[in-house]
Order: sequence, then structure tokens, then C-alpha cells
Amino acid sequence: MSKLVIVGTVAFDAIETPFGKTDKILGGAATFIGLAASQFNVDAAIVSVVGGDFPQKYLDLLSNKNIDISGIEIVKEGKTFFWKGKYHNDMNSRDTLVTDLNVLADFNPIVPENYRDAEVVMLGNLHPLTQLSVIEQMEVKPKLIILDTMNFWMDCALEELLNVLKKIDVIAINDEEARQLTGEYSLVVAARKIHEMGPKYVVIKKGEHGALLFNEDNVFYAPALPLEEVFDPTGAGDTFAGGFAGYLAKTGDVSFENMKNAVIYGSTLASFCVEKFGTERMENLSSKDVQKRLKQFKQLTQFEIKLI
Amino acid sequence: MSKLVIVGTVAFDAIETPFGKTDKILGGAATFIGLAASQFNVDAAIVSVVGGDFPQKYLDLLSNKNIDISGIEIVKEGKTFFWKGKYHNDMNSRDTLVTDLNVLADFNPIVPENYRDAEVVMLGNLHPLTQLSVIEQMEVKPKLIILDTMNFWMDCALEELLNVLKKIDVIAINDEEARQLTGEYSLVVAARKIHEMGPKYVVIKKGEHGALLFNEDNVFYAPALPLEEVFDPTGAGDTFAGGFAGYLAKTGDVSFENMKNAVIYGSTLASFCVEKFGTERMENLSSKDVQKRLKQFKQLTQFEIKLI
Repeated sequence: MSKLVIVGTVAFDAIETPFGKTDKILGGAATFIGLAASQFNVDAAIVSVVGGDFPQKYLDLLSNKNIDISGIEIVKEGKTFFWKGKYHNDMNSRDTLVTDLNVLADFNPIVPENYRDAEVVMLGNLHPLTQLSVIEQMEVKPKLIILDTMNFWMDCALEELLNVLKKIDVIAINDEEARQLTGEYSLVVAARKIHEMGPKYVVIKKGEHGALLFNEDNVFYAPALPLEEVFDPTGAGDTFAGGFAGYLAKTGDVSFENMKNAVIYGSTLASFCVEKFGTERMENLSSKDVQKRLKQFKQLTQFEIKLI
Repeated sequence: MSKLVIVGTVAFDAIETPFGKTDKILGGAATFIGLAASQFNVDAAIVSVVGGDFPQKYLDLLSNKNIDISGIEIVKEGKTFFWKGKYHNDMNSRDTLVTDLNVLADFNPIVPENYRDAEVVMLGNLHPLTQLSVIEQMEVKPKLIILDTMNFWMDCALEELLNVLKKIDVIAINDEEARQLTGEYSLVVAARKIHEMGPKYVVIKKGEHGALLFNEDNVFYAPALPLEEVFDPTGAGDTFAGGFAGYLAKTGDVSFENMKNAVIYGSTLASFCVEKFGTERMENLSSKDVQKRLKQFKQLTQFEIKLI
């Protein structure tokens, strides 16, 4: 079993959807990635920062999922990163109402000593220089470095982002981000341009339309499970990334063929995440639930074509 | 081998895309459906109407594909239906610039005698009363009736549309049409509501995002082949329908399992249609091309999940 280092936010979210709204609840990219990866019983550690206002029960929740939290710095006098957002009726777009960086503004990630030889590194959406710092702390070259990012960094830290892209293996971003990064509408052309920027593997997340995996001339397309209702999309992309990274860390096989399975696991876990507010569904997700849905996924997509 | 009756427009199109524009070229739903179905060497007949301005060479083109054209009425003193449209840069939306109904305004479809026992009927997008008239002319109850429609008929002939929906087996419409027909955003809920309107099988076409097939509690999701370039989307939906109907007519098996394959064939043929203007690519499509792309399709979507 491989070690997995996860870098990203551990945060408070306040969410409003057409189905309801929450006060400050547990959120953050690393939280969702960690909860998803914990499904695979890998040796995962989160590297992040929170303020003195962050409840011990949330830290306990992560620990109880066997996630190492020694890399989560607690800035006693600081406040935890807070995001507040409101989803539109179609659930495909949202407005950010509040972004309080708080302790994240001065975040200086420190990878715990005993995780500097981790085989898999998952860089959640953060400033590219923060992501770079984590890569540089690794004492053994990781087998696989996966990166998520967002349009915000393309707007205001593009050079740093392009620099870190040269050092990673897999980028996992959404379709609009892929288009913005490359200036190409066709995702096939966009993926090729991103390959040229560094990452050998390009995962493009299309939300309810599934996810694409590109590697040179190989393409794999995993549809999303059609859902009756999307209750809260917050964290779905991070849950996908956590499932993807966790599965690859667990199996230790980073071939394209196995990455297909990682995409399927990521999609499957993301389909649970959106069923309840925030992390609620992921906190109470059994292996049996996951296996059952994986079978649904297989039925959803597999066919035996008769060539005629 | 089953007989297939295709009802729909045979028309002139003028198309403008970011890649270029055409004068009046061969178009129409029945044309695209027929060309796609001709890949299966089924005994297909088109029921339609054209004007005296319709070139013999276009009729010959259809005949040469072994499509029976005895049901295409030629109104010598009339003009052929003409549509002119312009696609936006993202190719996912378009403006209709001209719609000249011409001879279509008084179209009274006559199914040729020797096709009134056809096993499969494909009702292309037309006024629901025209579609109904074809169903009523069938002397033997068809094994499968497939219907396409559009938002226009939901706006101005909803009652007639709902009436014809009670008499068909499969509806094949796009996602926006499914949402308009049901008032539901979730396609899962929309499909369920459409089931209640009559069709046991609901195919929802999502363009570049693939197609969904619903039958009671069964769902199948075929992604679209990611393309480097969509040159002209005109006719892609009809080509999908023609591939779907043609495959089912050829195999004579209308089970859910076989309909999955029909969806895959439809998607595969549609992926060719968009490569050139109008019908050009479909006119010159070899069985070898199709088989090759089907294999790509299989590679694109199939996986062997390891449950862990």
C-alpha cells in the first residue's frame, strides 16, 4: 500500500442550494479529497492549515477515518478559511458570496517527515507556489503527482501555474478550466495542448456529463451516473480527485488501463457526495454502498456490441 | 431483415459554421435518417415530399443507397422545404435564418402499399398529426415505433404531440426538449415523466455529451466520441436516430440490451456526420470506417473494474 499526501484547504463552508441552506459546516478541498481517499484504507496525510476556531470534532472526524492530520497546522490566533456560495437553480453554476482567506493567506505547507517518501501526491486547488513547495519537499520522487487548479490561478498566477505543470503527471480540472488554460473549445485539442505543458495524463471533469481521461492518443470517457436529484454539488470535484488518487495509491498501478478504473471510482464517489450537504454523505459511506454503485456504473456503461 | 419506414423532411439546407458556409445543399431529417439506416442494408423507404426544384441527382443518391423513394411525393409546381441556419462559435447553438416550408405546408404522407407491414417505423421531426397519420396507415402493428420531435411542436401542437406519444414505443429527443416537455431539469425525472406519457423507451440526446437510454429502472449512458473538430452539427441527431432505427430493424431485436447497441451505433454514425458539411460524410461512409470507429468507441468506454 502506497502513502498518499493530500494538500489543500480544510475549511468552513456555508452553502445555499434550491433545497436549503447551511450555517458554517466542514468543507475544503483536502477534506473532501481525504474522505474519498479514506474509502481505500490508504495511508493518507492531509497537509493544510486551520484557525483556532476550527472544532476538534472535525479533526477527530478525519483522524477516525485513518487520515494522518499531523500536517494540519493550527494557527491558534487565526481564523479558518471560509467560503460561502449559492447555487443557481440548474445546480451547474454558483455565485461566491464570501471568500475569507484568513489563515490560508499565509499558509506555508509542511509535509510531515514520514510522508516525504509518499508514492502519490494529490495537490488540491491552491496557489501554484504552495503546490510547488510541496513537490519540492518530497525526498523521494513520487510515482504520481496529481494537480487540481482553477481559473482564478490562470488569471492571476499563470506563470507560476505553468511552472508547476511541468513537474506533475496528472492534471484534473473541469471543462471550462481546460478551455481557459488553452484557449481551445475542443476538449481533444485542449488536452493535447495541456500535454505539451507537462502533464502526461489529463483528466477533464464535466460534472453531470462525466469525465474524460487523455493520455497521448488514448481517451477514456466515464459518464456520470444520472441522478434524480443533485442536492449539493460542493466538493464533488474534490471527491472525484480523492477517489482517483486514493484508488491509484491503493493499487500502486499508474497505467492508463488502471487510471480508467480510478476515474470510475472517482465518479462513483462523487455521485454520493452530491446527495447531501457538504461532507455529510461521505462521512457515512460504507464500502457496501460503493460496491453496489460501482455495479450500477458498470451496467450504465457496458455493452456487448454485435458487429454487423 | 425487417422493413423500415422513415417519415421526415427531404430538403435543402444552407449552413454557416465558423468553418465556412454552403449554398443550398441536400438536407432534411429523413435524408439523414435514411443515409444512416442504409449502413445496415435494411429494406428502408422514405415517406416525404419535395418540389419540382428538387434535383434528380439527390433522388438518385438515395436510390443508390437502396432506399425506396416511391413514398417521396414530387409536387412539380411546388418548391422544396428550405432551412438556413448559422451556428455559433461553440457549435452548440444556432440561429435559424430562413424556414421556407413550401411543399411541406400541405404534406400528406402516403406510406407505399408494400411498406404498410414494416416492423420498424421511424417518425422524424414533423407535425404530430403528420406523424399520427403514418401510424394509422400501418396495416400490421409495427414491432417498434420511434419518434423524434422538437420544442416547436411542444409550443404550438402540444395536445396533438401528447396524443401521438401514447402510440409510440421510443422517443428520441434532446436534453432541452426533454426538459421542456416535462418541466423537469433532472433528466432522470424527465424520463420517468415521459414514460408516463406513453413511450416505454426514452432516448435523450446530449450532443457532445452523449446519449442516455431509459427503460423503467434501466439506464444506459453512451458518451459521444470526443472529436477534435465539429465541422457541421446539422443532421447529427437525425443520423443518430437513423443508426438507432436501422440497427434495430436489421437485428429485429428490440430488447433493452440490444437497444444499448443501437445507441452505440447511432452515436458512432453521428460522429461521422459532423465531420463534413451536410450529408457529405454520410454519402461516402464505408462499413470499414464504421467498424473501426465502433472499436474506438469500445475502447473509449469499456473498463474492467477491480473491486477492492
